[in-house]
Amino acid sequence: MVVAAQTAHFDTPLTLKSGAVLDSYDLVYETYGTLNADASNAILVCHALSGNHHVAGVYEASDKKPGWWDNMVGAGKPIDTDRFFVIGLNNLGGCHGSTGPKSINPATGHAYGAAFPLVTVEDWVASQARLADKLGIRQFAAIMGGSLGGMQVLHWSIAYPERVRHCLVIASAPKLTAQNIAFNDVARQAILTDPDFHGGDYYQHDTYPRRGLRLARMLGHITYLSDDVMGSKFGRILRQGGFNYGYDVDFEIESYLRYQGDKFADSFDANTYLLMTKALDYFDPTHTAPEAGLSAALAPAQAAFLVISFTTDWRFAPERSREIVKALLDNGQQVSYAEIVSKHGHDAFLMPDAHYHALVRAYMERVSG
Amino acid sequence: MVVAAQTAHFDTPLTLKSGAVLDSYDLVYETYGTLNADASNAILVCHALSGNHHVAGVYEASDKKPGWWDNMVGAGKPIDTDRFFVIGLNNLGGCHGSTGPKSINPATGHAYGAAFPLVTVEDWVASQARLADKLGIRQFAAIMGGSLGGMQVLHWSIAYPERVRHCLVIASAPKLTAQNIAFNDVARQAILTDPDFHGGDYYQHDTYPRRGLRLARMLGHITYLSDDVMGSKFGRILRQGGFNYGYDVDFEIESYLRYQGDKFADSFDANTYLLMTKALDYFDPTHTAPEAGLSAALAPAQAAFLVISFTTDWRFAPERSREIVKALLDNGQQVSYAEIVSKHGHDAFLMPDAHYHALVRAYMERVSG
Repeated sequence: MVVAAQTAHFDTPLTLKSGAVLDSYDLVYETYGTLNADASNAILVCHALSGNHHVAGVYEASDKKPGWWDNMVGAGKPIDTDRFFVIGLNNLGGCHGSTGPKSINPATGHAYGAAFPLVTVEDWVASQARLADKLGIRQFAAIMGGSLGGMQVLHWSIAYPERVRHCLVIASAPKLTAQNIAFNDVARQAILTDPDFHGGDYYQHDTYPRRGLRLARMLGHITYLSDDVMGSKFGRILRQGGFNYGYDVDFEIESYLRYQGDKFADSFDANTYLLMTKALDYFDPTHTAPEAGLSAALAPAQAAFLVISFTTDWRFAPERSREIVKALLDNGQQVSYAEIVSKHGHDAFLMPDAHYHALVRAYMERVSG
Repeated sequence: MVVAAQTAHFDTPLTLKSGAVLDSYDLVYETYGTLNADASNAILVCHALSGNHHVAGVYEASDKKPGWWDNMVGAGKPIDTDRFFVIGLNNLGGCHGSTGPKSINPATGHAYGAAFPLVTVEDWVASQARLADKLGIRQFAAIMGGSLGGMQVLHWSIAYPERVRHCLVIASAPKLTAQNIAFNDVARQAILTDPDFHGGDYYQHDTYPRRGLRLARMLGHITYLSDDVMGSKFGRILRQGGFNYGYDVDFEIESYLRYQGDKFADSFDANTYLLMTKALDYFDPTHTAPEAGLSAALAPAQAAFLVISFTTDWRFAPERSREIVKALLDNGQQVSYAEIVSKHGHDAFLMPDAHYHALVRAYMERVSG
């Protein structure tokens, strides 16, 4: 499937949850499949921390690397583009084409940098609803996402209950724990204290907080993998058979992590990373009424839910998905739930596990287009 | 108990596992209680990553903060200094008085820095045996340690089986997992890539890789605490009631972690931190004969063992202690084992849990002086 990105421009000001206002902005997006006559077969895919609009397909037939959820979305795949019209977008604040910290601030003529406001899950959902309006989609057949993407799905179900029929919340959580926030804060401190960060305005200084972003990604990567899979994949395997007695790579796991950190630091924007982790930390549907709990927060939802977790995911453990399921059940809302046995930790949601995919496929077969 | 540190100087060269030779070195140590006439009541306490020789007591009656294991060691305490002669030392490569990277290299007249060789658990045990010789201790009544300290205890039991009657291995593991190594490598990379590190020779540059060490400690701290205790202690409590929509402290957990990072960075040496994490990574009693397994590696031990783990410790989980217990049982060696129910994660080994302390006390009552 050869696809192309498109850009939607918005010039109705968007007031963010922080109170800041974006006078105008772009959202870059891709679509797969065909919108039917009554615009009832649309599916929105919300991305996680480092994702973007390139969900599926390739840009040229010769591209080796397809979109990040290509095993899930496409013709004949669990999210079948022969039946559904699927939209992927890059969220506001992103670094893949939508307006974000590295975009040019029309007020100053140079990159926003530190002047780009923090955006929240709620802001993303509001901007996604505007994109839906522009595309003529009044109600989504389904909205889906993993991890931070799942939080956007949850918020859609609350903020626009009449605009979504099915919610697929995968490897997610209703809100972060103290430990989740702690890991995010170490990652942020790595970037914020990098001397090349310059308070977020590194674009003007012709520097880049590469060291900090690399550390943030190395750390993140540990939390995406299970202890088990790290053990079976890398264990204590040495790179060169013996110890160096120095600080070069001794163990394969070190080589792997540094490679992941380097690769990411070369392709992502540090300000976007900061902002995405903050959106994760802030999201909490019970924030304004903690005593009422999650079931009260989810009560407005009209959608049916499919909630999926993975047994070895310790970043967003199955317990966190069960909280969502229990809240929905408390409300008598419609929910299916599966805990997929997987050794792949949090990353499992991106992988083509047969049971997982069969489950999504079976669920989607019941969803009318 | 008012105590004072002492220094032992060694000028018999010590050949390290790496092949490097330390021509001479100092070990700083403290003792509590009285060595009996036949020197049979000595207990050695081995410290973990950030520990030192100041195990118990205070330096002046007015000191508010006693040694790091003062709740365990003292008159009438589980390790009763009315019966036992207890020794704490700062390991080679440390930054609290024993020869280490910030010590003056006699060959150059300035700090060792990067020239200080990597030391291993095996090297520490060899240097501890020399200290025992100097103090006239042929055989220890017990050797004990938590975490990295427990690894030293394990190696004592193998390397000098006739020199230790009882081994107390607490919150430890026979070797690190890939995930453990991965966390250590992120911590090291934070220090190594800090522009103030200068390849380890920051002493001469009048700089200090404070940022890197701070990050390393913040990260370490997350792994010392359980998810549970972080949740019950900090949860999602906000510092100022609302969100900042910026990168200053929002959540109490962020404030706590940054404080811990700052405090540590002000008092520890970055080269020592690096070296200690490497000693952790390298330790593996099965390294030279992996097929033979842990029971073969522990077969030479003659001591009786007390192995203790803590239910919520995910850095050195109970499973890892059970590996040690199983290997000893396979050999028909004498071992007692307890999994202490605790919410405090890896840090539990330093805390005065009643069950844990009663258990150590009961065990030590059977140990003859």
